[in-house]
Amino acid sequence: MSISAFFRLFQPKDKVFYTLFEKVSDNLLSMSKYMVEGMSSKENITEAFFKKIEDYEHANDKLTHNIFIELGKNFITPFDREDIHQLAASLDDIADFMYASVKYALLYKSPYLKSFATFSKYIDDSVVELQKAIYNLRDFKKPKEVLESCVEINRIENVADDLFSKEMGALFESKIEVIEIIKIKNIIEYLEDVTDKCEDAANIIESILVKYS
Amino acid sequence: MSISAFFRLFQPKDKVFYTLFEKVSDNLLSMSKYMVEGMSSKENITEAFFKKIEDYEHANDKLTHNIFIELGKNFITPFDREDIHQLAASLDDIADFMYASVKYALLYKSPYLKSFATFSKYIDDSVVELQKAIYNLRDFKKPKEVLESCVEINRIENVADDLFSKEMGALFESKIEVIEIIKIKNIIEYLEDVTDKCEDAANIIESILVKYS
Amino acid sequence: MSISAFFRLFQPKDKVFYTLFEKVSDNLLSMSKYMVEGMSSKENITEAFFKKIEDYEHANDKLTHNIFIELGKNFITPFDREDIHQLAASLDDIADFMYASVKYALLYKSPYLKSFATFSKYIDDSVVELQKAIYNLRDFKKPKEVLESCVEINRIENVADDLFSKEMGALFESKIEVIEIIKIKNIIEYLEDVTDKCEDAANIIESILVKYS
Repeated sequence: MSISAFFRLFQPKDKVFYTLFEKVSDNLLSMSKYMVEGMSSKENITEAFFKKIEDYEHANDKLTHNIFIELGKNFITPFDREDIHQLAASLDDIADFMYASVKYALLYKSPYLKSFATFSKYIDDSVVELQKAIYNLRDFKKPKEVLESCVEINRIENVADDLFSKEMGALFESKIEVIEIIKIKNIIEYLEDVTDKCEDAANIIESILVKYS
Repeated sequence: MSISAFFRLFQPKDKVFYTLFEKVSDNLLSMSKYMVEGMSSKENITEAFFKKIEDYEHANDKLTHNIFIELGKNFITPFDREDIHQLAASLDDIADFMYASVKYALLYKSPYLKSFATFSKYIDDSVVELQKAIYNLRDFKKPKEVLESCVEINRIENVADDLFSKEMGALFESKIEVIEIIKIKNIIEYLEDVTDKCEDAANIIESILVKYS
Repeated sequence: MSISAFFRLFQPKDKVFYTLFEKVSDNLLSMSKYMVEGMSSKENITEAFFKKIEDYEHANDKLTHNIFIELGKNFITPFDREDIHQLAASLDDIADFMYASVKYALLYKSPYLKSFATFSKYIDDSVVELQKAIYNLRDFKKPKEVLESCVEINRIENVADDLFSKEMGALFESKIEVIEIIKIKNIIEYLEDVTDKCEDAANIIESILVKYS
C-alpha cells in the first residue's frame, strides 16, 4: 500500500471535487455534442456556432477555476492535490483544443473536408467515455469500469491518428492549392489533438486509479 | 493539512533554492528586455543580437544545472524535490523558446511583421510577472501576490493567443508568397509558445502554492 | 532524506519493474538499430521496412501495458508508482515518434534527404545511452553512470536541434517546391522529436535519481 493510500484510510472524503469534475465532464459532453452538429457541414460553421463553442469553453474555464479555489479551501481531498490539479488542467485542454478547431475552421475559411465531421464524432465518442470514467471514479468503487473507458479512449485516439495520416496522404496527392493544404492540415491537427488530450486525461485518471488501488 | 505540509513544519528551510530561482528569473528578465529591443525592427535582428540571446540562454542552462546539483546535495528543500525539478525545467523552456524565436527569425530571413515586437512585449510583460511571483514565493509569505501574478500571466497568454490567430487570419488573406507565410507562421508560433511556457511555469508555481497552503 | 526515501528503507524492492524497463530499452534499441538501416537510403524506405517498425512499436505497447498491469498487482515498487507510470509513458513516446517518422517518410513519398540517416544515427546514439541508463538504474547502485548517460542524451538532443535548423535554413534557400518542403519539414520534425522524447525520458530518470539519492 502506498503512503498516500495508507493516510487516505483515516481521511473523510471530500465530495465537492467529485461533483466539480462531474460538472466539467457534463460541460465537455454538451460541447462535443454541439460540435458534432456544427462540424457536420460547411454551412454550419458560422459565427453563431463559434460563439456558442466559445461559451462552452468559458464555462469550462470557470469550473476549472472553481476546482482550484476549492483546493485552496479544503484540507481534505479525495486524492492528491497535485492529481486534482493535473486532471483539471488536462480536461481544460480538451475544451481549449475543441475551441481552437472550430475557431480556425471559421477564421481560415478553410475548404471543408468530410473528415471534419468524422473527427468530431471521434471526439464526442471519447468524451462520452471520459464522462463515464469520471462518474465511475467516485469513491474508487468501480475501478474496472473506469479502466474500460480509459482503454476505449486510447483505442479511439489510435483510430483518429490513422484517419489523420490517411487524410494527409490524400491531401498531398490531391491538386488542392498548397495554401489550402496548410489550412486544412492545421485544422485536422487541432481535431486530432483533441483526441490526444482525451488520452492524456484518461492516462491521468488511470494513474490516479493505480495510485489508490 | 497535506502530509507534505505537516512534515514541512519540522523542516528548516533551505534558502539556496529560492536564491537560485530568483537568479533564473533575473536572467530571464534581462533576456526578455533585450529581446524587446532587438525585435523592434528588422534591422535589429542581427547575428550580434542573436549571439547575445544565445549567451542568456547558456546562462540559464548553467543556473538550471546548478539547481539540479543543489538538489543532489541537499536533504532539505523548501518544497518537494519534484516540484523544484519541474519548475526549473519549465523556466528553462522559456529561455529555450525565446532563443528559438530569435534564431529562426534570423535564420529564415523571414519578412518582418510589426507583431514580432508586440509578441516580444507580451513575453516581457509575462516575465516581469513571473519574476515577481518567484520573489514573492519565498517562504510562502505572500501567497496573494503570487496568485495575482499567475492570473496576470494567464491573461497575457490569452491576449497573445488572440494576436496569433488574428495574424494568421490576415496572413492567409494576404498576397504574401506561401513560402514566406510558412516562415512567418513558424516564428510567431515560437513567440506565442513563449507565453504558453510562461503560463506553464505560472501553473507549476500555483500548484506548489496550493500544495503548501 | 525525503519521506519516500525514508519509507523505502523498510521496503523490499520489487525487481519486476527493473526487468520490464530493461526489456523496453532492449526493444527500443533493436528498433533504433533497424531504423538506422532503413533510413540509410530512399530505396530502403519500403512497406516491408515500415511493417517491421510497426511490429517494434506494437511490442513496445505490450511491454508498457505489462508495466501498468504489474503496477496494479504490486504493493511494493522500487520507486514511486507515478514515476514508473511517467517513465513507461515517456519510453512509449520514443517508440511512437520513431514509428511516426518512418510512417510519414513512406506515406508522403517525400524527397529523401541525407540527414534522415544522420537523424536516425543520433536517435540510435540516444537510445544506446538510454538503455545504459536504465540498466544502471537498477537498485540505484550506479548513480554516476546513470547521470553520465543522461548528460550525453541531452548533448545529442542539442546536436540534433542544430542539424534541424541547419536543414530548415537550407530548405528555404533551395529551389525545392513548397509542397515538398512541407513534407520534409514534417518528417525531420518527427525525427528531431524522437531526440526530444529521449531527453524527456532522461530527465525523468534524472529526477527519479534525485529523489532517491
